[in-house]
Amino acid sequence: MLYLVGLGLSDETDITVKGLEAVKRASRVYLEAYTSILLVDQSTLETYYGRSITVADREMVESNSDEILRGAKEEDVAFLVVGDPFGATTHTDLVLRARELGVPVRTIPNASILSAIGATGLQLYNFGQTVSMVFFLDNWRPTSFYDRIKENRSIGLHTLVLLDIKVKEQSLENMARGRKIYEPPRYMTVGTCAKQMLEVEEEKGEGVYGLESLAIGAARVGGKTEKFVAGTLQELCDADDLLGPPLHSLVLLGRRTHELEYEFVREFAINRHTWDRVWEADYKGKQS
Amino acid sequence: MLYLVGLGLSDETDITVKGLEAVKRASRVYLEAYTSILLVDQSTLETYYGRSITVADREMVESNSDEILRGAKEEDVAFLVVGDPFGATTHTDLVLRARELGVPVRTIPNASILSAIGATGLQLYNFGQTVSMVFFLDNWRPTSFYDRIKENRSIGLHTLVLLDIKVKEQSLENMARGRKIYEPPRYMTVGTCAKQMLEVEEEKGEGVYGLESLAIGAARVGGKTEKFVAGTLQELCDADDLLGPPLHSLVLLGRRTHELEYEFVREFAINRHTWDRVWEADYKGKQS
Repeated sequence: MLYLVGLGLSDETDITVKGLEAVKRASRVYLEAYTSILLVDQSTLETYYGRSITVADREMVESNSDEILRGAKEEDVAFLVVGDPFGATTHTDLVLRARELGVPVRTIPNASILSAIGATGLQLYNFGQTVSMVFFLDNWRPTSFYDRIKENRSIGLHTLVLLDIKVKEQSLENMARGRKIYEPPRYMTVGTCAKQMLEVEEEKGEGVYGLESLAIGAARVGGKTEKFVAGTLQELCDADDLLGPPLHSLVLLGRRTHELEYEFVREFAINRHTWDRVWEADYKGKQS
Repeated sequence: MLYLVGLGLSDETDITVKGLEAVKRASRVYLEAYTSILLVDQSTLETYYGRSITVADREMVESNSDEILRGAKEEDVAFLVVGDPFGATTHTDLVLRARELGVPVRTIPNASILSAIGATGLQLYNFGQTVSMVFFLDNWRPTSFYDRIKENRSIGLHTLVLLDIKVKEQSLENMARGRKIYEPPRYMTVGTCAKQMLEVEEEKGEGVYGLESLAIGAARVGGKTEKFVAGTLQELCDADDLLGPPLHSLVLLGRRTHELEYEFVREFAINRHTWDRVWEADYKGKQS
């Protein structure tokens, strides 16, 4: 049996009791470590689970899934995923391959940022599609997120923006020389995301959002040091110090809001005067 | 401290290790039991947790939250919620009241149907806003879901439809006579949902969806007996036997699909011939 085990969002104790039992029982334990990370390191997990863990990087999961699935018809293999196992496309591939090989699969769900973001006080019913923001390079500035946000905002919905993480990246020089030396991991902050969003709005000029659009920066959601900061996109460009270490996410508000959302989120406002002013002018009682 | 503890979706072992520790430590333990249910009963939870549990019905949470929060500045109170604590508005109210009273709050997230529905193989990125379907009565047929689905489908997105549950309902006669006698709980099935959806399409006639629209019926998501059935809305009207006992949910597909989604979901098709035919004609390569 292949067990896809969600680890939740924060530390080693966010695994479910059912998930922990599956990990303890499995012959081999893999950890998917490239679409998200926990706030604790691998050795902490290994000590807590009492098991050694093989880190599965993107290459292994995408190109060498048969190694992960080896013998899984007869024995149990646990594949650990931060958050919920079905947050990322890659795991769909793994399940399809398991089906081909006749390996039975069981999923053990857990918290995902897609639902845990409800802790901002925004109603999950009012969210549209989720988008991703990658680190812009000089020659690579993908802007499909802009069209998705436009769609969401055209019907008044909030947008959750998931922020890029870069792990196990090689410098061009090291890659060219075939040296397996990796750069330190990088995690996008809310400030970088807000700036990139505003740059793209400036380029496209469709008025999908602007400096005064309301948003929430979220850090370490579900963890003990969880932190939310609410303000305009302009304010969030400079709020990384308030938010602290990774992981960060951002929510851009839609105009279809509920009074309860206002009251709940106001608590997190960088500047309540600004928050109240923009809310009254652009959000309160609006539908889209 | 008020702990909002997510219980996940299925049974007593879906609680996280962190959540279980909070439950064992708390002075009092409440269970919110009107927006969703686990597949096991209260006594199973009590035995497993080693704690007695007070069931908190809607009236208690909405009108008597001070009783739940009593003493919570000095001692720990655990408020258990099926799924993730922020799935429903009511808990926002409870947190706002806690803030007013100066009670610190911590949330322990868990799996929610909003992310666990990814086990259908549909990409969570392609979902629009979530809607609810209530049991229609002769004189009460709320159709706001139709407009929401229209919005989602206009931009090609899938829609998760959460189905009504009725617990602790009184008959009109018992209510009139002030008798606290409750009807057996009722859980909407995928068949009822599909029929109500088609009735409303017939009334409104806007062509938001139809008999041949593709959808997935989901039962007991995250549990050992999890079951998915894919087909047209017409086919799903009669698929309750295949799906088995509650809880059920339904996903109406949007047209912005990925080939991986096709391949993954096809496994669940009631009739693969129909599935392939409709997919080719109405979904493949479409954007909205």
